[in-house]
Amino acid sequence: MSEDDAAASSALLEASDDNYDGKIVSSASLPADPASFAARLRRSLAAWGDAGARGVWLKLGLAQSGLIPVAAEQGFEFHHAERDYVMMTRWLPTSSPCTLPANASHQVGVGAFVVNAAGQVLLVQERSGVLRGRGVWKMPTGLVAAGEDFTQAAERELLEETGVTARVECVLAIRQAHGFAFGKSDLFIVVGMRPEPEGQEPVPQEAELVAARWAPLSEYTDQEFFRGMPLYEKMLDR
Amino acid sequence: MSEDDAAASSALLEASDDNYDGKIVSSASLPADPASFAARLRRSLAAWGDAGARGVWLKLGLAQSGLIPVAAEQGFEFHHAERDYVMMTRWLPTSSPCTLPANASHQVGVGAFVVNAAGQVLLVQERSGVLRGRGVWKMPTGLVAAGEDFTQAAERELLEETGVTARVECVLAIRQAHGFAFGKSDLFIVVGMRPEPEGQEPVPQEAELVAARWAPLSEYTDQEFFRGMPLYEKMLDR
Repeated sequence: MSEDDAAASSALLEASDDNYDGKIVSSASLPADPASFAARLRRSLAAWGDAGARGVWLKLGLAQSGLIPVAAEQGFEFHHAERDYVMMTRWLPTSSPCTLPANASHQVGVGAFVVNAAGQVLLVQERSGVLRGRGVWKMPTGLVAAGEDFTQAAERELLEETGVTARVECVLAIRQAHGFAFGKSDLFIVVGMRPEPEGQEPVPQEAELVAARWAPLSEYTDQEFFRGMPLYEKMLDR
Repeated sequence: MSEDDAAASSALLEASDDNYDGKIVSSASLPADPASFAARLRRSLAAWGDAGARGVWLKLGLAQSGLIPVAAEQGFEFHHAERDYVMMTRWLPTSSPCTLPANASHQVGVGAFVVNAAGQVLLVQERSGVLRGRGVWKMPTGLVAAGEDFTQAAERELLEETGVTARVECVLAIRQAHGFAFGKSDLFIVVGMRPEPEGQEPVPQEAELVAARWAPLSEYTDQEFFRGMPLYEKMLDR
């Protein structure tokens, strides 16, 4: 080992300070070799802990996943992951509980309740899922993506499913449910919309729907399926 | 290697079917040895792919993190993670795009807008964060945990920060913002609340607040800080 190599392998890991007395490890500067990473991580945690650092953030890309077992051995836990990386964290103080923020807690869904100038509502029947084959007419619904306004999601889902363009006018109701999507919670927002322009005929997207049509509001509200569901009772009150 | 060992190492990984023509690998049955896991995973993916399987779900606990690099080499990506495990996925069809659902996309925040019988609103000044030292009076706010109703979160945050008990009456406003919390989105819900009973004096929680008090609504609305913010203009309209 040259003197330069020895110096590099004994150095602390590169890290920047966060705003909460924590450390953000520089992912790009990590050694690829697990043994070298293990030694430098151990020295770094000791030095940062002595200096009063609290939370340590370690982001490892898919190609660095050989370093994950090393971090796990040194007390790191998972915080969150996206397709190409996992974020691990280690709380250093021994005398205070971990105050690192939780990761994303909810999926957000949106329902498009579209009413035209004739007072008809746009209804669809789904091809798959829990309503398959049950003959239930419902409003178009979908999930809001991270980074997407829920009003835009309503317009997008409506267009994708029925070809109809419409504009969000108001929020009609909110419903929260738990234990969805890998244990997270679901927040569902029903928005009131107007078709723009009037007079568009819906065309059901074949992959998702078996039918789509305009119908009098009463045909929606009279369906046995929605009886006793607080969300719909609240929404149809208005 | 005994005959039994040889049979075990050549067997496919244990997996159950999901409702979308996919496979959920049994985490508890995974071999601890990465080489054995690599061989069985390779054979399993080939067999499942031949049988028309689509998404494969592989949940690996912290103690199994030595298997993550093996899965990554065989085309798995991260899907989401909680403190003690990471979920990896592999999409098998080569002729159709991945339709696996995204992980949680939002954090949800709640604001407690508490108005008493005298028409006063409960205001606080925060000890840390972006408002530190700026003299801004605001409503108590906090994050909704996964599995927690946002109405309960409002009551909890209010009680934790000020000692005041109150009851949610209505949703006053919703605001969505993007690029928060590790790239996810933020949905903030302002709820209108009534103190129960009337006549409670707020006691600021020292770690989070420097002050808490009842004040005429005008003292809240007249603050320069909130001018031009659509959320507050919408809310104060009512």
